[in-house]
Amino acid sequence: MGKESDTRERLIRAAMNLFHARGYNAVGVNEICEAANVKKGSLYHFFAGKRDLALAAIDAQWEFFRDELLEPAFATDLPPLERIRRFFIMTCAYHDSARNENGQIKGCPFGNLAMELSANDEGLRVELEKIFGRIGGYLEKALAEYSPGHDARTGAEQLLAYHQGTVLLAKTHNDQQLIEAMAGSAVELARLTATATT
Amino acid sequence: MGKESDTRERLIRAAMNLFHARGYNAVGVNEICEAANVKKGSLYHFFAGKRDLALAAIDAQWEFFRDELLEPAFATDLPPLERIRRFFIMTCAYHDSARNENGQIKGCPFGNLAMELSANDEGLRVELEKIFGRIGGYLEKALAEYSPGHDARTGAEQLLAYHQGTVLLAKTHNDQQLIEAMAGSAVELARLTATATT
Repeated sequence: MGKESDTRERLIRAAMNLFHARGYNAVGVNEICEAANVKKGSLYHFFAGKRDLALAAIDAQWEFFRDELLEPAFATDLPPLERIRRFFIMTCAYHDSARNENGQIKGCPFGNLAMELSANDEGLRVELEKIFGRIGGYLEKALAEYSPGHDARTGAEQLLAYHQGTVLLAKTHNDQQLIEAMAGSAVELARLTATATT
Repeated sequence: MGKESDTRERLIRAAMNLFHARGYNAVGVNEICEAANVKKGSLYHFFAGKRDLALAAIDAQWEFFRDELLEPAFATDLPPLERIRRFFIMTCAYHDSARNENGQIKGCPFGNLAMELSANDEGLRVELEKIFGRIGGYLEKALAEYSPGHDARTGAEQLLAYHQGTVLLAKTHNDQQLIEAMAGSAVELARLTATATT
């Protein structure tokens, strides 16, 4: 049982890393099995196929993102808008540390898959939509605390768009510093949305 | 010669449409040739391979985007910030009309490829970076006209990030209305960047 769950775990981790580094369609099951040091039959013992494994990999990626980025960034030791600034700064640090072997930054694991797959796989689209909803929830909570009674959900969506677009440009420029450079304007945008008359 | 250039054109158009609908790695050369109604040998007569064809397809996509979206959106019949609003509204209309057969919106053709390929193909990354630079140029010109003497380039980058992130979320929610709903806040963001003390 211990061995079994270790194999499953290795497959999920390998898939998570390979999909983040290269995308979904560029990575095959053979490559995932090799990276996980697992026989191909084992993959089909635990998962119906690559897509099923991708769902588990997205879950694992979410847990990592929540524990390593969202929870620390949005901890209540700072005032609400400063947490949003910290979210951008931590996102920059994360992309700096999580480079591909060729030195390129990888982009948001969820944004990448959403862009690659949303138009052609309704199930994965809905899964990624849920995750954006959860990330938006952290932004919404900070905005609601900053400015009670305002439409924090719309503001959260605007900030999430800004965050995702910033990471997209950073990836395209291969320059994670862009994300940190945007932190100040993200705070300004947050202030703007939280004081807009709705 | 007329026939030859028609074949090349059909290949470019088929590749452009298929890459936009499904991504780069999900589409094979056989499928492109079939859609273009061209024999595989013809593809290799005009292009070194799929990647070379992709470069031509990105060029063609750029020309379409420039002529159909950027030029009309940023025409000087409106005040500068209203052009930015129009850019968002026209982007919404474009995504509404350019759906996949399954009804899903496709996302930004450049953003999609940038997210899928930037980390693994330096040549394509640089090509897409150039295109983002050109789109940013339209935003920069409007901002510079609105507020001469300010750092219009930084503001343009922020607005481009906002635009791309908005399209990314719209694709993930499969709801192009989100882009139009963001138009007002894009104008506010533009005003903010154009009056920020630098």
